[in-house]
Amino acid sequence: MTQRPAVLIMQRHLAPLTGFLEGSHDVYRFWEGPPIEAAHDIRAIVVAGEFELDKALIESLPNLVHVACFTAGYDRIDVDWCRARGLVVTHAPGVNHEDVADHAIGLIIGSRRGLVSGDRMLRAGGWKPETRVLTPSLNGQKIGIVGLGGIGEAVARRAEVMRMAVSWWGPRDKPSPWPRAESLEALAKDSDILVVCCRVDETNVGLISKEVIEALGPQGLLVNVSRGQIVDEPALIAALKAGTLGAAALDVFTVEPADPADWADVPNTVLTPHTGGATNESVQGMLMLLMRNLAAVLGGEAPVTPVRD
Amino acid sequence: MTQRPAVLIMQRHLAPLTGFLEGSHDVYRFWEGPPIEAAHDIRAIVVAGEFELDKALIESLPNLVHVACFTAGYDRIDVDWCRARGLVVTHAPGVNHEDVADHAIGLIIGSRRGLVSGDRMLRAGGWKPETRVLTPSLNGQKIGIVGLGGIGEAVARRAEVMRMAVSWWGPRDKPSPWPRAESLEALAKDSDILVVCCRVDETNVGLISKEVIEALGPQGLLVNVSRGQIVDEPALIAALKAGTLGAAALDVFTVEPADPADWADVPNTVLTPHTGGATNESVQGMLMLLMRNLAAVLGGEAPVTPVRD
Repeated sequence: MTQRPAVLIMQRHLAPLTGFLEGSHDVYRFWEGPPIEAAHDIRAIVVAGEFELDKALIESLPNLVHVACFTAGYDRIDVDWCRARGLVVTHAPGVNHEDVADHAIGLIIGSRRGLVSGDRMLRAGGWKPETRVLTPSLNGQKIGIVGLGGIGEAVARRAEVMRMAVSWWGPRDKPSPWPRAESLEALAKDSDILVVCCRVDETNVGLISKEVIEALGPQGLLVNVSRGQIVDEPALIAALKAGTLGAAALDVFTVEPADPADWADVPNTVLTPHTGGATNESVQGMLMLLMRNLAAVLGGEAPVTPVRD
Repeated sequence: MTQRPAVLIMQRHLAPLTGFLEGSHDVYRFWEGPPIEAAHDIRAIVVAGEFELDKALIESLPNLVHVACFTAGYDRIDVDWCRARGLVVTHAPGVNHEDVADHAIGLIIGSRRGLVSGDRMLRAGGWKPETRVLTPSLNGQKIGIVGLGGIGEAVARRAEVMRMAVSWWGPRDKPSPWPRAESLEALAKDSDILVVCCRVDETNVGLISKEVIEALGPQGLLVNVSRGQIVDEPALIAALKAGTLGAAALDVFTVEPADPADWADVPNTVLTPHTGGATNESVQGMLMLLMRNLAAVLGGEAPVTPVRD
């Protein structure tokens, strides 16, 4: 092994981390095909938690000790499998939930108040003297939060000041200022706007099912700032086309990058490229946690922010 | 005169009012060329306050008593001239300021967090695996409110819960929880985001001047939900092109409908077709005030919501 610990960055969009890491690490980048002789050096892999682990690759790295998620989410990381192999898994919690909540509010206004379609219409020359676009006020709209964690609570606080009526559902009850619905379907049925804020894991893939989507109904707006897999995307697209769901505003998709062809003829959508938490400031916070976790784990100490469950 | 009072709707986009008015009025529509013999019947004209009054027309209506602005704003109405002719001028205050504030927040997120450009980029196929768009967090952004009236206060309350630091400027000091800057230029200089929320009148046309725009600077975002005339639009466009202003998010324009050609090559803009206050609920509230004002004034009673100054 070299003096400096070697790390392997797995996903291409994490390439900008290189500059920060190479001050104290030898940095390899997976998509560039690291040299075979590096396999023995690599002590940590740096990943985005929404991507599946390459287990065969991990098995080929005999000195790997650390799977470092740059992200808060680690939904595609098989944590049990990593633990069974003695690998420490860390992530970056609590850094970007308020930014994600801001983005969720932007998606709500962008869709409900016709802001994104208005920009498009104006640029296409569709604004005429006789045009009068009316949209529903947010005042008194019932907003249902799916998953009252850090993001969900931050969305709820913003929604309240915008005069929306907040309720929520999550599998476990918890103390909160807002009422918990007795089921997800009841929440959807009683909401004008449903905002998916929960963490995804193997238990809740497809949680936002055809039934939940139809309970939200033809006037309803579905917002997703969590993970694409939590929504039954074919059912969502079918419901939007059939008008059994009113609108959707999505920052996340089953497959990312999303294929625009899938959405070209789907009405009443606002679509953003998974930027909810991607602020300069949150990335800086995530970077700091990444560096601290790498230093701790590769230095033989306890990780700063290990995954919890 | 007929039994039912006659009213004349001036602007084409107000045509949907016809159905509500004709239950108790004879309704004429200016753009359809009302018959000459109607001139003696017309007791009220219904207008949008952002349009100049047709004074020659008014002088041709001998029994006119009421200029009824459907809108909250009455900036293009020459109130003194109307009063000198014995005409009562009414408007619809306090109905839609919270909706306008919601829209202003949508413009801030839509621009600052790249929501509108993100939607456009995704649909154009620009989201690639290596794409990582980073935007500034709203956390700690300094937001300057120009005009702390109903809209300005509602924007300030929303901005606070989104972790922005609020200050404001208006020509008159007033008690508020937020600090007042010593001048508009000082506010612009100290702000990341400047939101124009004030009423426009003859004293503040062009208030957001080249100097104010440049004080806001290359990282700054200008948001306007007030009236187009309050901003020096040629200076704004020049500053955006030169990069001396960072971005602009506008719901209002000097001439409306805005000509998209004017904005086609202006970078970093979000543009909406004056929909800030145009919600179903606010229009309903404005309609109610219009009907009550017409009933009062045409019945010889005091107006419910006369213009104040």
